[in-house]
Order: sequence, then structure tokens, then C-alpha cells
Amino acid sequence: MRDLSNDRGLLAINSATVKAWSLAQLVDGCARAGISAIAPWRDIVQAHGVEKAGKLIRDAGLAVSCYCRGGMFTAADDAGRRAALDDNRRAIDEAAAIGARSLVILGGGLPPGSKNLAGAHRQVREGIAALLPYARAANVPLAIEPLHPMTAADRCCVNTLAHANDICDEMGDGVGIALDVYHVWWDPDLPRQIARAGKRILTYHVCDWLVPTRDLVFDRGMPGDGVIDLRAIRSMVEATGYNGHIDVEIFSTQDWWKREPDEVLRICLERHQTVV
Amino acid sequence: MRDLSNDRGLLAINSATVKAWSLAQLVDGCARAGISAIAPWRDIVQAHGVEKAGKLIRDAGLAVSCYCRGGMFTAADDAGRRAALDDNRRAIDEAAAIGARSLVILGGGLPPGSKNLAGAHRQVREGIAALLPYARAANVPLAIEPLHPMTAADRCCVNTLAHANDICDEMGDGVGIALDVYHVWWDPDLPRQIARAGKRILTYHVCDWLVPTRDLVFDRGMPGDGVIDLRAIRSMVEATGYNGHIDVEIFSTQDWWKREPDEVLRICLERHQTVV
Repeated sequence: MRDLSNDRGLLAINSATVKAWSLAQLVDGCARAGISAIAPWRDIVQAHGVEKAGKLIRDAGLAVSCYCRGGMFTAADDAGRRAALDDNRRAIDEAAAIGARSLVILGGGLPPGSKNLAGAHRQVREGIAALLPYARAANVPLAIEPLHPMTAADRCCVNTLAHANDICDEMGDGVGIALDVYHVWWDPDLPRQIARAGKRILTYHVCDWLVPTRDLVFDRGMPGDGVIDLRAIRSMVEATGYNGHIDVEIFSTQDWWKREPDEVLRICLERHQTVV
Repeated sequence: MRDLSNDRGLLAINSATVKAWSLAQLVDGCARAGISAIAPWRDIVQAHGVEKAGKLIRDAGLAVSCYCRGGMFTAADDAGRRAALDDNRRAIDEAAAIGARSLVILGGGLPPGSKNLAGAHRQVREGIAALLPYARAANVPLAIEPLHPMTAADRCCVNTLAHANDICDEMGDGVGIALDVYHVWWDPDLPRQIARAGKRILTYHVCDWLVPTRDLVFDRGMPGDGVIDLRAIRSMVEATGYNGHIDVEIFSTQDWWKREPDEVLRICLERHQTVV
């Protein structure tokens, strides 16, 4: 297991953690904090202009641990599914332009009006299969992120690492896993599925599960403030050979999004070195 | 699959669905609505007095599909675990006194201050094993309820039917499953695990998953108002031979708990006959 106690090089700041910042502010903020990697969402990259964003990030010497996010394949009709694929191809282009090591992929939830969960699962598999040639050609791996089961209806119907591993088995090269502790910490099958994922783990995300959790999406905690055994999970992940960044991704309308972003970065780094 | 279109006999009203009512009010309300089974929580039984509650229910000719709830075995120390077992023995006595067909058991979450999920799982197994002789002697089956993974930290760390089935495998006679669609509908492994559960399913609960869901505990929907494919899941459950009641259990601070309970019962019956 890697020693993070003096590390700065393995921490990546997910732009969702400092939601108030533009891409330029994020790049400057990381420079001030001595942090060398970011995981941007599409909104701030698009707002900056994709080519300019790539140049800004390269000139700053920042690594892009992953790009958030593509997927959302499920739709009520063919036109919706085609539109999702078109949008995913643009996301792949953007990921390539900024040098992202992977594109994070959410499955999507149930299409509007649908109760057909197995059908949604099928749409996710078909969407990934349809997108994969384009992703391979662009040399952008697709990182399938299993999301917490509480998101199954409206965000992502791939809710366990076992399910994501199954999809990877089916797809072959060019797909892997985005593993976020928030979504999988509760799973008694996690140790076995992390070992099974092995080299497929393309990006590793941390935050924490708060007790109580007051919102299904926007109440994540800073690492160390919740109940997730972060060390134990990282140990399992690194035992697979994972040597990439550790992204801090926190959605938090009531707490961290209200704080001064430079202060948030300082605390992310402190927790990275002490509790992650 | 049973035809419920004109059925009244298989519907059981969980007392949590009409939280404003006392046990006497629930019994009267069911009589007015022509409903013949209830699934009471401990609070209203204890408030009425346990022996008196048994007489009231028997005199009204009501079946008690299950008793809610025992378990919560996890604790920070031995004294806490002993207290939980003592309380569970009282719950078994109460269940026997009112003629409940099973006692629903929640595992309990992480003990205060703990991040040891595997340790919590172990405490649940040990708690059930310790309680089981008393439950067998009282002829009250323990119905282990897998709860949604979003409850893992603070209510129940048994979060999949697979995990509940594993515990049943280990325990042998006297334990089974309380299956609530709300907690398991998202699971791609559900069909296989329902078939595996087979005759172990002791009580079957319905409500619905709303989109959006605004609270992790208290925002359940009336059957038909959400995205759960209730017919599909009931079909799988009844294919195992399940021929018991179907409990409607809805926690809903913002909607159903604000409505007039007689009206809630009327809608429960209507949905029971049309969408469950």
C-alpha cells in the first residue's frame, strides 16, 4: 500500500468538489495548493473551450486523472439513444483533447415511464458496445462507474461492482472501472469484486458516507468525516496493482460547496495525507 | 400468480402506513375497509398493552402477517449487545402474544464510531444465532429483512437478498426472509436470489420507489406511484410457492402520513387489486 503521508502527486481534485470554480480557477487553485492532477467535469471544460482547455491544462503541467462524465445511454426511444451516443462521442473527443486517462461512464437510469430494469441494463450494454469502437480509436478508455443503488431509477442502473465487472467481461478491451468508495463501500462482496476487477480499475474516487445522510445525491462527506473504511478499501484496490491518482469528488450543497474553494483544497490534501 | 383483482383477504396493512392510528384505530379501520390482516409495529402494541392487544386482534378476527420489528443487534460493547438480545426476547414474546406469523429482524448498522463493516456483519450473525433458540421455542420465525444499501450505516448492514440468504444457510430452521420490494428492486441478482430463497420467504412487503426520492427513509410511495415493477417481482415470489399476505408498508412524512387514514386504506386496497 502506498504511503500518502507526504504525498501530493497522487491527489486529483474533481471539479465537482469545488463547484464554484471555473476551469481556469481550478488550474490556478491547484497550482497554489501544490496539487498536480485534476478530474474535470464537462461543464467547465466546455465553458472554457475544449482546445483552449487542453492547452491550459498542459501548460500548467496537470495530469487529468479522468473526465466526468459520459454514458447515460438509456432512453425512451431510438432517437434518444442516438442522441446519447452522439453526445458520448463528443465527450470522448473532449477527453482526448484534454489528455484524460479515461472517460467515466454512468449507465443511465430507467427511461421515463419505464419500469423495465432488465431492459435498461440491456440498453447500457448496447450503448457501451456501440460507443466502444470510437473510444478505442481515440485511445480513451471507458471507465464504467457502478453507482449506489439509490441512484438506480434516475441516474445509473449499474449498481454493483459485480455488475460492472460482468459488463467488462462482455466488452473486452477499452473498458474498465471507475471505482468510487461512496457507491460500493456497503457491499459485502466488495473484496472479491475488487480482486476480480484487477487491472480494470482505471480511476479511484474517494469521499465519505455521512451519518445521517440528508440527500441522495448532494450530501457527501469529506474523507474522514464519515463511516467508510477508506484505508481498507484503498489497500484492496492497490493490491490489484492500481497505481493511479486518488480523486476527491464531493457533492455537498449544504457544506463543502459553501466553503471557500482554496480552503477545501487544503483540507482535501490534509485528508489525502492522513485518512485516505 | 394469484389473481388479486377482487381480493381482500391477502392484503395486510402495516401500521407504519397509517402512523397516526393507535392499534385500536387500526383494528377498527381495517374492519370498516373490509381488510383482514395487519402487520403492527411494536409501538402501538406496547401502547395498547401486549395481552390486551392479542385479545383485540383475535376478537376482530384479524391475521397478523408479521410483527415489526426486532434485530438491531450491532452495538459498541457487550452490554449493548446483551440489551439488544433482551429486547429481542421481549419482541418474540409480543409476537407470540399477538399471533404474528414472523418477527421481522433488521441487522442494525455500524456501531457508533465504528467503520468495521465486516465486524458488524459478524455481530448480526452472532445476534441471530443467540436469539434463535428462544425464537424456536416460542414458535416465532425470525424474518431477516435485507434493507436498501442506503441504510447500511445506521439501520441495517444486511443489504442484499444474497446476504440474507447466506445468513439463512448458516442458521438453519427458524429463520427466513422478509422481502420488501423497496429494498431489493434495483438488484440485478434478484431473480436468482428469490428463487434461492424459495420457501424461506415469510412475509412480502410492497410500496414503491419514487422519482425523485427526497429522503433516505421517509419518502416511500404508494404501490403504482413509482418505478418498481411490482407484478414482475410478485410473480417471482409466488413462483417459489409463497401464499401469504402482501403487506403495504409506507413511510411518508410529506404525503401519506398527512392524509386521512381511512382514505389511505381505501387506496391501499385499490392498488392491491390493480397494480400489486
